[in-house]
Amino acid sequence: MAVGDKKVILGVDPGFSVTGYSLMVKEGSRAYLLDCGFLKMSSKDHLSQRTLEFHDFFKKIIEEKGVSHVSLETSFLGKNPQTFLKLGYLRGILYLLAAQHKLEIAEFAPREVKQAIVGSGSADKEQVALMLMRMFPQLQQYSATLRNDVTDAIAIGICGMCLFN
Amino acid sequence: MAVGDKKVILGVDPGFSVTGYSLMVKEGSRAYLLDCGFLKMSSKDHLSQRTLEFHDFFKKIIEEKGVSHVSLETSFLGKNPQTFLKLGYLRGILYLLAAQHKLEIAEFAPREVKQAIVGSGSADKEQVALMLMRMFPQLQQYSATLRNDVTDAIAIGICGMCLFN
Repeated sequence: MAVGDKKVILGVDPGFSVTGYSLMVKEGSRAYLLDCGFLKMSSKDHLSQRTLEFHDFFKKIIEEKGVSHVSLETSFLGKNPQTFLKLGYLRGILYLLAAQHKLEIAEFAPREVKQAIVGSGSADKEQVALMLMRMFPQLQQYSATLRNDVTDAIAIGICGMCLFN
Repeated sequence: MAVGDKKVILGVDPGFSVTGYSLMVKEGSRAYLLDCGFLKMSSKDHLSQRTLEFHDFFKKIIEEKGVSHVSLETSFLGKNPQTFLKLGYLRGILYLLAAQHKLEIAEFAPREVKQAIVGSGSADKEQVALMLMRMFPQLQQYSATLRNDVTDAIAIGICGMCLFN
């Protein structure tokens, strides 16, 4: 929970294969990246089992890190409607956790996320990643291995940090 | 949980407006409809709140009625992709509850469901409802008010009862 005007924003880019996440902290005029990483789940496990694994992973982060806000990017239908539907399973888990822990949850359009980072809604993934490296120099040490899922989650978290009231 | 060879099958036809459900029991050669009904949620409530309401409603049923199996119908993309994605939120909650309570969960294609009830995969909703009335005469007292969501959920439950091993 937020203490005073402290906000802990969990940014998530969910996926049944890899889910990127970030934890941004905003405290008065100070803002920083507390943590980031990813959850990789095995396609060998039953969908039901992976849903539980996803739930338990984020429940633990929310409770241990005192998350106050959850930030997501609005999803749009891709090539495979069944993959799109299953993405909804994971998003539903985040909505449930938000309600259970009384967190504010909001979705931002991809344009809003890019706008918040690069200043342009039409920026590409590389421009977003480059800008994130400038904002958080500590990310440079991971630059070779930093996954798109994680940089996307950081961008989504920053967008939440800028746009949550 | 199932005791001996007793199966308690929860059939669900989820929706953010109305969710129909059924509880079918199979015990040796005996099979019967234990209960059926629906959950109506208000569109005025935040999506997050409704996800929690859905979770708590089915958690209670699973625990109180000793559900052992969950039966769902496979969803297909309709006119509105965002409605389809949000349907995934509710399905995800059922997958989570299944994993948390160690229930078997399976999905059946609409053709399989109709086949299990009417004997033909191309039957329409009215034929399915009519056949259900014959199978469960106690439904006739509700026939004027029996919602499609509920008859669909009964059909999905029966399909699960026939096809779960």
